Amino acid sequence: MAELPPPLQTLKAALGKLPGIGPRSAERLALHVVQGDALWVKDLAAALVAAKERIESCDRCGALTENQPCQICVDPRRDTQVICVVERPVDVISLEKSNAFHGQYHVLGGQISPLNGIGPEDLRIAELAERLREGEVKELVLALSSDVEGDATSYYLAERFQSDGVRLTRLAHGLPVGGGLEFADELTIGRALEGRRSMEVDSSD
Amino acid sequence: MAELPPPLQTLKAALGKLPGIGPRSAERLALHVVQGDALWVKDLAAALVAAKERIESCDRCGALTENQPCQICVDPRRDTQVICVVERPVDVISLEKSNAFHGQYHVLGGQISPLNGIGPEDLRIAELAERLREGEVKELVLALSSDVEGDATSYYLAERFQSDGVRLTRLAHGLPVGGGLEFADELTIGRALEGRRSMEVDSSD
Repeated sequence: MAELPPPLQTLKAALGKLPGIGPRSAERLALHVVQGDALWVKDLAAALVAAKERIESCDRCGALTENQPCQICVDPRRDTQVICVVERPVDVISLEKSNAFHGQYHVLGGQISPLNGIGPEDLRIAELAERLREGEVKELVLALSSDVEGDATSYYLAERFQSDGVRLTRLAHGLPVGGGLEFADELTIGRALEGRRSMEVDSSD
Repeated sequence: MAELPPPLQTLKAALGKLPGIGPRSAERLALHVVQGDALWVKDLAAALVAAKERIESCDRCGALTENQPCQICVDPRRDTQVICVVERPVDVISLEKSNAFHGQYHVLGGQISPLNGIGPEDLRIAELAERLREGEVKELVLALSSDVEGDATSYYLAERFQSDGVRLTRLAHGLPVGGGLEFADELTIGRALEGRRSMEVDSSD
């Protein structure tokens, strides 16, 4: 059996390190590349290098940005009294897409995980404390994962900052919008029941 | 809503042109890249450019290769009396993986398609005739798609080369190995029935 030419093998191996791209997909992509438009391939290679070189973490909030500080930190229309605390820079992007949050962010860079040797001092918690010391923040919205370590991190933050006079809130858990009960797992249904809310029926008309 | 930083948007757009990568996957990959190892990103970019620059079509058979002619064309262990005719360079790779064919290949570069303005003269059929004129080839195995245009192309080739004293064969159609009847479509089941073969029962022991 003839093997793939070496440059194709190299490309397949490099593409195979992308998340969600297995060996078969990597080969399919590599073959597409060598048969594709040369200009596009050059553009793609340049875009990879440019993005990696030019995107960094915002010194203030930790979000991905090209400039320091990031556009969210410097945007005068954003509410500086509310900070949403997330684990990863990509979480900021997810929240921004919802268009439902207009405050600022703080990326922790992970969650407290004693098993993996990650303590509070390994996260950007000191930086968060620093921002709270500026005195302007009234509310911290904790938007961490709802797994054991995310919960532990949330409780740690709540305990640490509750005396600072800021309100601490967490995102609600419940059924995804548009999803029926049959698609939700038991824990989610349990949380949705716990967090049930009165229906507001407008009987004025 | 804050937008993705421009270098990330550019990368997302370039990745989105890969086959099977939609906008959501492209964004996920782009975010992985900017948060990934810088060395790997450089390697990936270099592999893309290198593969595109160094891989070309074999002048003789049309397969993807780094050298002219390709390793299959120059391999003395391969049977030069049988040529397998395929549509695309990637088909050679699929057939090589099966490890079941030990002859040489000829890539047509497509199929005859009057609707798309592709006639026999647009495919590498003249080059195939040239190889047949060398006189060594005894069999042409047609391994084209089993759609209307692939069938038309197979019949065109059969008609054109039947007088040259070469045997013309086609790949068998039937049930995929390991797949039950419930996963096969009607056409495949029909072809599997048409092509049914006597079972050879070894009663000598």
